[in-house]
Amino acid sequence: MKLVILGAAGRMGRTLVRVVKETEGAKLSAAIEREGSLALGNDAGELAGAGHLGIPVSSDLAAALDAADGVIDFTAPASSVAVAHDAARRGLVHIIGTTGCSESDDAAIARAAQAGARIVKSGNMSLGVNLLAVLAEQAARALGPDAFDVEILEMHHRHKVDAPSGTALLLGEAAAAGREIALKEQSVRVRDGHTGPREAGTIGFATLRGGSVVGDHQVILAGEGERIELSHRAEDRAIFARGAVRAALWARGQSPGLYSMRQVLGF
Amino acid sequence: MKLVILGAAGRMGRTLVRVVKETEGAKLSAAIEREGSLALGNDAGELAGAGHLGIPVSSDLAAALDAADGVIDFTAPASSVAVAHDAARRGLVHIIGTTGCSESDDAAIARAAQAGARIVKSGNMSLGVNLLAVLAEQAARALGPDAFDVEILEMHHRHKVDAPSGTALLLGEAAAAGREIALKEQSVRVRDGHTGPREAGTIGFATLRGGSVVGDHQVILAGEGERIELSHRAEDRAIFARGAVRAALWARGQSPGLYSMRQVLGF
Amino acid sequence: MKLVILGAAGRMGRTLVRVVKETEGAKLSAAIEREGSLALGNDAGELAGAGHLGIPVSSDLAAALDAADGVIDFTAPASSVAVAHDAARRGLVHIIGTTGCSESDDAAIARAAQAGARIVKSGNMSLGVNLLAVLAEQAARALGPDAFDVEILEMHHRHKVDAPSGTALLLGEAAAAGREIALKEQSVRVRDGHTGPREAGTIGFATLRGGSVVGDHQVILAGEGERIELSHRAEDRAIFARGAVRAALWARGQSPGLYSMRQVLGF
Amino acid sequence: MKLVILGAAGRMGRTLVRVVKETEGAKLSAAIEREGSLALGNDAGELAGAGHLGIPVSSDLAAALDAADGVIDFTAPASSVAVAHDAARRGLVHIIGTTGCSESDDAAIARAAQAGARIVKSGNMSLGVNLLAVLAEQAARALGPDAFDVEILEMHHRHKVDAPSGTALLLGEAAAAGREIALKEQSVRVRDGHTGPREAGTIGFATLRGGSVVGDHQVILAGEGERIELSHRAEDRAIFARGAVRAALWARGQSPGLYSMRQVLGF
Repeated sequence: MKLVILGAAGRMGRTLVRVVKETEGAKLSAAIEREGSLALGNDAGELAGAGHLGIPVSSDLAAALDAADGVIDFTAPASSVAVAHDAARRGLVHIIGTTGCSESDDAAIARAAQAGARIVKSGNMSLGVNLLAVLAEQAARALGPDAFDVEILEMHHRHKVDAPSGTALLLGEAAAAGREIALKEQSVRVRDGHTGPREAGTIGFATLRGGSVVGDHQVILAGEGERIELSHRAEDRAIFARGAVRAALWARGQSPGLYSMRQVLGF
Repeated sequence: MKLVILGAAGRMGRTLVRVVKETEGAKLSAAIEREGSLALGNDAGELAGAGHLGIPVSSDLAAALDAADGVIDFTAPASSVAVAHDAARRGLVHIIGTTGCSESDDAAIARAAQAGARIVKSGNMSLGVNLLAVLAEQAARALGPDAFDVEILEMHHRHKVDAPSGTALLLGEAAAAGREIALKEQSVRVRDGHTGPREAGTIGFATLRGGSVVGDHQVILAGEGERIELSHRAEDRAIFARGAVRAALWARGQSPGLYSMRQVLGF
Repeated sequence: MKLVILGAAGRMGRTLVRVVKETEGAKLSAAIEREGSLALGNDAGELAGAGHLGIPVSSDLAAALDAADGVIDFTAPASSVAVAHDAARRGLVHIIGTTGCSESDDAAIARAAQAGARIVKSGNMSLGVNLLAVLAEQAARALGPDAFDVEILEMHHRHKVDAPSGTALLLGEAAAAGREIALKEQSVRVRDGHTGPREAGTIGFATLRGGSVVGDHQVILAGEGERIELSHRAEDRAIFARGAVRAALWARGQSPGLYSMRQVLGF
Repeated sequence: MKLVILGAAGRMGRTLVRVVKETEGAKLSAAIEREGSLALGNDAGELAGAGHLGIPVSSDLAAALDAADGVIDFTAPASSVAVAHDAARRGLVHIIGTTGCSESDDAAIARAAQAGARIVKSGNMSLGVNLLAVLAEQAARALGPDAFDVEILEMHHRHKVDAPSGTALLLGEAAAAGREIALKEQSVRVRDGHTGPREAGTIGFATLRGGSVVGDHQVILAGEGERIELSHRAEDRAIFARGAVRAALWARGQSPGLYSMRQVLGF
């Protein structure tokens, strides 16, 4: 599968170049940067620390898309909307890891999917995190709030400036969906001093910070006499790139449409 | 729901008496022991350390079933087969935690279910373990053998005499089912000395023994850069009784038939 | 070693009776309750669910101490101070798990130790927790604040009404002692929303609540590229009684004096 | 502190160059490769992906040592012995991560330490692993074999070809030292099928393999009602380089002699 990488000189773009190179069945066909980038003309593989690939970074998106099966895009909303329409015209796979899209951006992307693009869009492209969310939703549904308490724990490196992590909240939303409750109304995000006994049905969050931890997440369901713990440990940040490339390979076999990572996982 | 407990003076029977007493919507209606048991005539609650319940242990099963909505049965295959037919005639719920049933026992139980009994039968009545098995199967299917290695870890107290535990093997079977492979052909149960690199597609087992650990199990899916860990921790042995009582409450609302704990969990 | 249990009809007292019975080298010589207790005259073993021991609960403390090698005391400050002086006169071992002692109570207990009692006093008699505190202090000293961040995580059952647990704070104090800092000035007990990056040298706390968890504690030291996790899992509440009986056996071989659980552990 | 890196173009050497650059108080003064290396003349920083450092790789060890405060050496036994004598003549710090030294190599290194070198030698330079070994030894001593069972668990990536890991065995040796037993006679390295109950005093090993796990190790002490778990998680392989650089900074302040990583940690 011939793949175009957008933003190929950026941190995520270079990781994508390396992962495409390592993935059986995938092949880098073009590496795109915006007009004026200092990286234009350099070999995409060398920039990525993946050895010479014979693919110079280029700004000619149209030519790249004409010769490709799919495009992977962790860029910005406006760019992703435009590329989605380009993909639709050509029936391409378009993997969108871009965050910050408005409702109208999302609507435009959905229209592109109806018009012929095979789009997978997600705010978190990790296979493991998306799987964990599915499992947490199912577990929270099967083990109800009368008997099992849901707690979500995360740990990240010392430089992270907010808490809980976006992924912890995503997992909380999944558990809340399984329970058919609104996370916002049932969250317990702080425990300090006299808290009183735990309220049934709430979802608790706890946050650890330290060292260089890439990101650990755990969903705990604690009942009388037993506990389920569903955990994800990220060892490196390339997992988002790996998930995106896997999504691309999967989407190639699908009808045009808009898909989620859960569907890539077979749910 | 009026429940009869079989083997009410045994260890599991007494635990069931306590759990029934604590469970909203469930009520002990009779406590059965075999003819000749020294416990006959004693109060079932006092035997169980649950206080006086006014239910003397009796050997009159027929009268007990006539007045009940369901019966919970961790006994022996012959007894369970007989009770299943009793339950069928009366349209009762019959929860069977008995192990060691032959194929013909299972067939007889299935016939009783067709004839009107509402039967839930499982070799492990813990809600958590059954949920973990479902999640492990799904995870092993979603994260295939090319990218993710499955490992199963268990820890039990120092008195346990076999390894791996039956539950570890049950989890291995679940993962193997998700992968559509035969566990026996793909198990790695020993690693010591020069093992060579891990073979893709195998399922590894590791065993820890020590102290008074009731039973911890973990299914690990380890891929490039990320790991999923699905764990169950048993804190006490009453979880099997709790699962059985929950199964009884659930089965009351079902049509006659033979059900598994997965169905009790909503899968 | 002949041991007297104070408050023998209470929850901790009954646990102590059971543990003494199970411990090689220890023997229950008397079971004491206060004048007027309804338990007086009942067999201490039967009250404890440990079978008949032939030791009726009594209120005659003086006679009990005259015939004993040691006394285990989880009672109240005034009582513990009085018993310490009784123990001093007789050169007995006195294990004090009583909490809430004032400074003058502690001074009186120290005087009793100088006058001939062999006293071990601790607010937490668990061997494991005391060991974890020693290890946490050493780890925090060896891996300094410039390179390693200390985080403390605890989980308890849903009925616990305060956070963090007393044991979590005890572990925090141990880490702070290793770092030679004041815990109060360096604690981070809440993280929610925009927190900014982690401040070097602080000690973070995180709290989980759910199910029937007896008590899990973890001290994490997270550095660049590696993490140390020191954990304690309590499976049942008898660990405090076990630690007290072990302390009694240990103290019998010591000179009169006031000892801590760390010394019982050999530190 | 001016540091010479030996084998500067190899994988460990390049990691050392990066870590020295990032470490306050340390400065790369020379980068050495053997005569004939293709790397000679290239900038050591560029080779290491750390940017231009103005230090060309050289084979002139004597000149490098004359201008340095210390030398870090993950090379081969013969080379390490020779460098130790060079270090002794100059009173330098010499950090030796070389493995495979014979007894006579070790004796020669000890003589160099007596003759003036400040040597830290260890088969595993990670601060965390060395700390874990100290803590495991203390824990195994404090919590004796009558009451607590020691188990050692390790997980490594799918490419590792032997089991248990060298670090797991090192931790087993530490626990055995705490118990004053011979590890070889007390190891249980395989559990499969009918094992019988756990023998008191043994040390069990369990091995997990999968994905890209750099190296997780856990020492468990499991007693009646409580468990201690002491864990180390390696996130990247640079921890060995970080430990070596820290050892160099520490050794500068010591008298000539032969030291271990435990002493670097302050034990």
